[in-house]
Amino acid sequence: MSDQPQGFAVILVEPQLGENIGMVSRAMWNCGLRELRIVNPRDGWPNQAAIDAASGAMIPIDNAKIYPDIAAAVADLQVVYASSDRVREMQSRVVTPEYAVREIRALDGQGVTAGILFGPERTGLFNDDIARASALIRIPTNPEFTSLNLAQAVLLIGYAWWSAGLSEEQDYVALGETVPATRQEFDGFFDRLVEGLEKGYFFRSPRLKPHTLRSLRTLFERARLSSQEVRTLQGVINALRRAGAYRFDGRI
Amino acid sequence: MSDQPQGFAVILVEPQLGENIGMVSRAMWNCGLRELRIVNPRDGWPNQAAIDAASGAMIPIDNAKIYPDIAAAVADLQVVYASSDRVREMQSRVVTPEYAVREIRALDGQGVTAGILFGPERTGLFNDDIARASALIRIPTNPEFTSLNLAQAVLLIGYAWWSAGLSEEQDYVALGETVPATRQEFDGFFDRLVEGLEKGYFFRSPRLKPHTLRSLRTLFERARLSSQEVRTLQGVINALRRAGAYRFDGRI
Repeated sequence: MSDQPQGFAVILVEPQLGENIGMVSRAMWNCGLRELRIVNPRDGWPNQAAIDAASGAMIPIDNAKIYPDIAAAVADLQVVYASSDRVREMQSRVVTPEYAVREIRALDGQGVTAGILFGPERTGLFNDDIARASALIRIPTNPEFTSLNLAQAVLLIGYAWWSAGLSEEQDYVALGETVPATRQEFDGFFDRLVEGLEKGYFFRSPRLKPHTLRSLRTLFERARLSSQEVRTLQGVINALRRAGAYRFDGRI
Repeated sequence: MSDQPQGFAVILVEPQLGENIGMVSRAMWNCGLRELRIVNPRDGWPNQAAIDAASGAMIPIDNAKIYPDIAAAVADLQVVYASSDRVREMQSRVVTPEYAVREIRALDGQGVTAGILFGPERTGLFNDDIARASALIRIPTNPEFTSLNLAQAVLLIGYAWWSAGLSEEQDYVALGETVPATRQEFDGFFDRLVEGLEKGYFFRSPRLKPHTLRSLRTLFERARLSSQEVRTLQGVINALRRAGAYRFDGRI
């Protein structure tokens, strides 16, 4: 057992198309989910169409376990959810994916194992299946078009689980090889720009100059320049001044 | 123009398979997105494979506009994002879907139009395309398997946008036709249960009785019973008592 969160088991109930099982495997592995359980797959197992559709996301497929019925598939699990759009008939607790994954992460931290049931492509889960779950997960899509295919439903719930584990820092991903400019570098560039503008009589009105300078600075600040870009812009200023020198009197 | 948030335009750059365009239309309409723009689709337009794969999600397909190049496709937009996994080469601002959709909703509230570029299936966007965007959206999937197909990328970003517009109340979806039991109903049931248990000598130790009662109450509270279920349980108690009456002395 590792200290990594295990996530949840994806339990496909009587899936019909191997292609969909493969797409589910992709969606699972995109989200770091490894544990695939399949109840009574229509076309047997292993399934070449599933392997083809997995596009290399083989960990869930390779780990897949096959069960004759739902009871066997969930026997060792402690908390079972059912993914379904059909909520009217049942009095289950109905939660969003975001809510469910917070529960799953909290339970995972206490060593509790969880699984989510996904029904067959055409019919979805039957009420007797849903009754085996402690809560129903409903993905709140556009009421005018709620139909999601199997892999899409797994992807949305899986991604909710995966992204809930990422730190807030991920909002800004690292900027690769580039280094943000220091304030000194930025100011050096900006001073050089202003110097050039003054020499070029850019500031017609002394009264408006502070405002114009602020606008200019804001514009460049917003771009969050890298060191390299500051150097490039210094070169741009130099080049423009050289060009102007040529243009107006033919000398550098 | 309606007061509804418009969301963002989905801009498919040189998509290859009509099937993928159809799956994108599905994903868009699942998330209430209407505006599909297609740059130079390989197989022309309209495309029967796209219509077939849309499975009835025809609003984006019917609204689709075709453009010869990216510049034309984004000409009237004010903010453009690029969806890409390729972040190392570029110094763009890189944000998560969740961050981008918050920006899009904030901008939308100020009447600013936004679009997101999605690249061709095999190659993704080229650096020159990405350079047209003010920020890059990177979907943070499992580093061991980051590959998402076109419709999956649209679905994850679209769902982030859609679900950001739902109120927190959606965490618990309405429970259909059922009505949660009032406290009075619940207490009536629980008192009846305790009465039966006392008569059945359930509480062997007076010292432990308060603890046992608390455990029992907690168990039933957690189930969040409906009025109907409370009545059903009252019936269960009555039935068990009747059964006991029969069992021990043959009379009711």
